[in-house]
Amino acid sequence: MSNFTPTERTRVRRKPERGSYDRELIYRILDEAFVCHVAFIADGQPFLVPTNYVRVGDKLFLHGSTASRLMKALGSGAPFCLSVTLLDGIVCAPSATGHSVNYRSVVVMGKAEPVEGEAAKLAAMRDFVEYVIRGRWATVRPPSEQELKGTMVATLRSLRRRTSSTILGRNRQTAP
Amino acid sequence: MSNFTPTERTRVRRKPERGSYDRELIYRILDEAFVCHVAFIADGQPFLVPTNYVRVGDKLFLHGSTASRLMKALGSGAPFCLSVTLLDGIVCAPSATGHSVNYRSVVVMGKAEPVEGEAAKLAAMRDFVEYVIRGRWATVRPPSEQELKGTMVATLRSLRRRTSSTILGRNRQTAP
Repeated sequence: MSNFTPTERTRVRRKPERGSYDRELIYRILDEAFVCHVAFIADGQPFLVPTNYVRVGDKLFLHGSTASRLMKALGSGAPFCLSVTLLDGIVCAPSATGHSVNYRSVVVMGKAEPVEGEAAKLAAMRDFVEYVIRGRWATVRPPSEQELKGTMVATLRSLRRRTSSTILGRNRQTAP
Repeated sequence: MSNFTPTERTRVRRKPERGSYDRELIYRILDEAFVCHVAFIADGQPFLVPTNYVRVGDKLFLHGSTASRLMKALGSGAPFCLSVTLLDGIVCAPSATGHSVNYRSVVVMGKAEPVEGEAAKLAAMRDFVEYVIRGRWATVRPPSEQELKGTMVATLRSLRRRTSSTILGRNRQTAP
């Protein structure tokens, strides 16, 4: 697997030795969680929403009501910043400021676009369910036309592209 | 305990029955975690950083290197949005779109200001350590002058004020 190429915006500056752009590592972290936080700007103010996601290959999908502020912002092409954080442990140290945590986090920056077409939306919704509970999709009533209409699925189109996708890596301390 | 008064920006619009402005409930959620995500705007772009916090009475404290983008933004009085999310369970339902999660999240919006004065900074740093591991502070080397200088502690000054503080509550589904 290849590396993502860091951009001016995504390059880890503080303690750069903790950063990584390794695609496999990034996907492994993403695949351990299903809750992320997404930041975006609306009316000039920063907003932050916890939501769930699914990764399918090089794509990340988010979904929500078409009426939600988050989905409206994503649908309009506004830039966003998404983070997934896994807390692995607490680091104790002899000095107060040496205390820290072991964590792995991924930050994704980019723009999203709505998934168009009923079949593509349905496939993504299946992926959301199957990612969290494998085998569940076959046992449930699929979304009605009305439910599909009320749901917006957005895909992070830039995950492949270095120009706007920006993913930065893990932070793992093992010593005080 | 009193309620926070919702503002235009903090009022829960989607499924408002899930929102709450109850101070006690909000503090209980904050006091179950120590990792938050903070969103802010820099160069017109949204940024998102996972970090830790401590609540002391009606105040929330964040800290970090004076060189970090987050602390620079907070120190300059830029608006931020902070979220703490606790995942309690997965909600299964007969229909695909009925699936959800039980979670509790707090969102805090406002502006921060640097904590000035060595004694106040030191007190906050003690609070960070003691919040995560009670009794730990007495056993460690306290921050040196150099370490104190390199660390910025920011306090959310608006937690008390309805005009700019905005906290919104939990989301807990118990039925499919």
